[in-house]
Amino acid sequence: MQETESEAPTWDVLADLIEAGDAAAVEAFLEGLEGSERGLVVSRLSTEEREQLFVLLDPDDAAVLLGQLPEVQAVEMIEGLPAAEAARILEELPSDEQADVIGELEHPEAEAILSEMEPEEAHEVRTLAAYEDDEAGGLMITEVVRATEQTTVAELVEELQEHADRYTRRDLQYAFVTDERGRLVGALLLHQLLLVPKRRRLAEAMGERPVSVGHRDKMDVLADFFEDYPETYRVPVVDEDGVLLGVLRRSAVEEAVAERSEETYRAAQGIIGGEELRTMPLLLRSRRRLGWLSINILLNMLAASVIAMNQETIQAVVALAVFLPIISDMSGCSGNQAVAVSIRELAEGLVRPSELMRVLFKELSVGVINGTVLGILIGLGAWLYIGNAWLGLVVGAALAVNTLVAVAIGGSVPLVLKRLGSDPALASGPILTTITDMCGFLLALTLAAALLPRLV
Amino acid sequence: MQETESEAPTWDVLADLIEAGDAAAVEAFLEGLEGSERGLVVSRLSTEEREQLFVLLDPDDAAVLLGQLPEVQAVEMIEGLPAAEAARILEELPSDEQADVIGELEHPEAEAILSEMEPEEAHEVRTLAAYEDDEAGGLMITEVVRATEQTTVAELVEELQEHADRYTRRDLQYAFVTDERGRLVGALLLHQLLLVPKRRRLAEAMGERPVSVGHRDKMDVLADFFEDYPETYRVPVVDEDGVLLGVLRRSAVEEAVAERSEETYRAAQGIIGGEELRTMPLLLRSRRRLGWLSINILLNMLAASVIAMNQETIQAVVALAVFLPIISDMSGCSGNQAVAVSIRELAEGLVRPSELMRVLFKELSVGVINGTVLGILIGLGAWLYIGNAWLGLVVGAALAVNTLVAVAIGGSVPLVLKRLGSDPALASGPILTTITDMCGFLLALTLAAALLPRLV
Repeated sequence: MQETESEAPTWDVLADLIEAGDAAAVEAFLEGLEGSERGLVVSRLSTEEREQLFVLLDPDDAAVLLGQLPEVQAVEMIEGLPAAEAARILEELPSDEQADVIGELEHPEAEAILSEMEPEEAHEVRTLAAYEDDEAGGLMITEVVRATEQTTVAELVEELQEHADRYTRRDLQYAFVTDERGRLVGALLLHQLLLVPKRRRLAEAMGERPVSVGHRDKMDVLADFFEDYPETYRVPVVDEDGVLLGVLRRSAVEEAVAERSEETYRAAQGIIGGEELRTMPLLLRSRRRLGWLSINILLNMLAASVIAMNQETIQAVVALAVFLPIISDMSGCSGNQAVAVSIRELAEGLVRPSELMRVLFKELSVGVINGTVLGILIGLGAWLYIGNAWLGLVVGAALAVNTLVAVAIGGSVPLVLKRLGSDPALASGPILTTITDMCGFLLALTLAAALLPRLV
Repeated sequence: MQETESEAPTWDVLADLIEAGDAAAVEAFLEGLEGSERGLVVSRLSTEEREQLFVLLDPDDAAVLLGQLPEVQAVEMIEGLPAAEAARILEELPSDEQADVIGELEHPEAEAILSEMEPEEAHEVRTLAAYEDDEAGGLMITEVVRATEQTTVAELVEELQEHADRYTRRDLQYAFVTDERGRLVGALLLHQLLLVPKRRRLAEAMGERPVSVGHRDKMDVLADFFEDYPETYRVPVVDEDGVLLGVLRRSAVEEAVAERSEETYRAAQGIIGGEELRTMPLLLRSRRRLGWLSINILLNMLAASVIAMNQETIQAVVALAVFLPIISDMSGCSGNQAVAVSIRELAEGLVRPSELMRVLFKELSVGVINGTVLGILIGLGAWLYIGNAWLGLVVGAALAVNTLVAVAIGGSVPLVLKRLGSDPALASGPILTTITDMCGFLLALTLAAALLPRLV
């Protein structure tokens, strides 16, 4: 991202042009912006201005612009437009992006737009939108060159030449060959058409049936597939009967993986329930963040009740109040490190969800070392600062033992969640922290109560 | 990822085959595993066994296997092998992966391997490895079809046919046309060769000079580029003089983006200084995690010193000890939410690093609402639980005000870091938490001291 020195609020200029309804000027203005600037400027328009803008633009320009907006805004855009307008723009998008947008809309809105599209295209979008976002069917495109075995090379070349404009725009590499029932039987690289006699039928010219993936295969399986075939950039997608449905591009899988990492990060930082952009309405942003914060504050109070029930210990040794927040924060950190390693190993396929004992063993070994080091550090701190070695012992031992608890829970919860079919990223949330907090407070206060005569 | 029911530790079987030195059996065994299983099994071998395995395998099989290992393990592998062996395996990888591995090695080891490679290939790898990981030169591949303007279509087709085996393996779509000084002047889709007369020179047959990216362009610019050209899957990379250096694939950029999200997530969870795998040596894993934890504990003690200096207030109102950890945790959460939104908006190009005032305004608006809600919640909790409305007021007000502080700092620090050229992900670390902790403790304890007569 280049930093621009001029801070001119360019969206005001654009807003004025839209207001004036000057389509040519709007187009020229957008044309003059760099890609990232274009997204920024359009995202800063008001919802009404953005809708006017999309009505002003040619459908294909609007479609390109739509692709440059964050998905949440693109969906909001389409929702705001009249159905006929929305349909005309959507028709310019590749099939997978059409399905992504339609899949995010409410049912009646989606149907209103689909009814404005060509029936065949609408049918295709409906089929694609019915797939999950993380399976091959939901990630594939349906624009492929396909022909039956009986077609000759010459016929295929002619067909390609006839639709040259359509085919040169697309990222096509293979012609897929099917039998009369649509089942994939072979493929050939388009530029191999150069190398074979024109009269030959595809059945003889084609290579053997290419590897394919199933339409219900999940993202992890698909990522593995592309790792196994580093030179493969697109793979045909077939149903249970082997019928060719579309093509899955490597980049679609990479994008889905990137999107999952983003979500994992957001979940870890407490942004749950979808991406937040600061252009969204204030109350929506506030409500989304509060949803998570208010659960967290209740769990925090639960954890703090352990302290509340031991107030007489604190009354006797006020210095404990200094160290309880440290124990809480440090245990949370150790636990989250273990969570991060488990999530990563699960995503890379380097640990099986059933290998709980292995993970516990590996985490406890690290936990013993780290707990000891951290326990000594905080213990020394407490001794030096408060001047009581026994107090150092109490808080040091509490942190050491609680580090073991934290890494054991943090390392294993993602595996358990994965096994239950949930998202492992949810582990790094408030529940882990609540348990480690309660446990840490209990350890410190119980130990202190036991050693009370030494501490006062 | 399919979960396997059988828990047979298959790596033992493989280890035995390696021990026996039975290359054919090893190959057959690996062949029989699914992609993800293969990575898992190989990653569980001891370092020695893995090295033996790579010596046993054919260089091209070894290269494929190398690509399936996490990068840290792949690098460790290559380091452990004799230079000649390592060179033979590396020569089978595409140029960008060669450069990635070589770039991670210590200088003398890298040179030892390069001196075993063909001089031309070694030169190429050296050039690529000199680029940063996040710029076009570091992400491109150098395997391209290139020809000068004077070449005829027939000559190019002949050249393609001659090296058909090499070209069908690669993901080639374009022939790039250069002038006599290597500068990019045009391109044509390989399958367009079908559509033009054979005698024509490329200068006439080619399309106009295609869009290209600069070899020093950074990841964000490149990601923008591919967003602007949704139908483009590879783009030529040129130097300042327009000389064609290689081709950048969309998937390489997608992968780099995914890798950056992973790193952002790891940083947020306290895994700094590189990925951790549980197959790494215990002391390395422990040391890496401790590096971050020990900074964090010192910062925690700094924050807690605010409590230590106000012990007499806690002595008077012990119940405060119950609420300080809650204020600390909740402010940290609110701050991290703001960090996550800023990092995301920066990555998407939806905010400029200089727009500090905008971000502050947007965050403070959310902060006022969320702070008020959370303040009321904790205030009610304190009132009900401890039975003192004034105490509720103190902790509620402290949390409300501190939420404002946390979102303001959390939202703006990533922008400042970005402006300074640092990684915005570092914001979600201990420094944010330390400041919000100190501020929260100070607010609660000062308020309590001021209202002390009402609280006891």
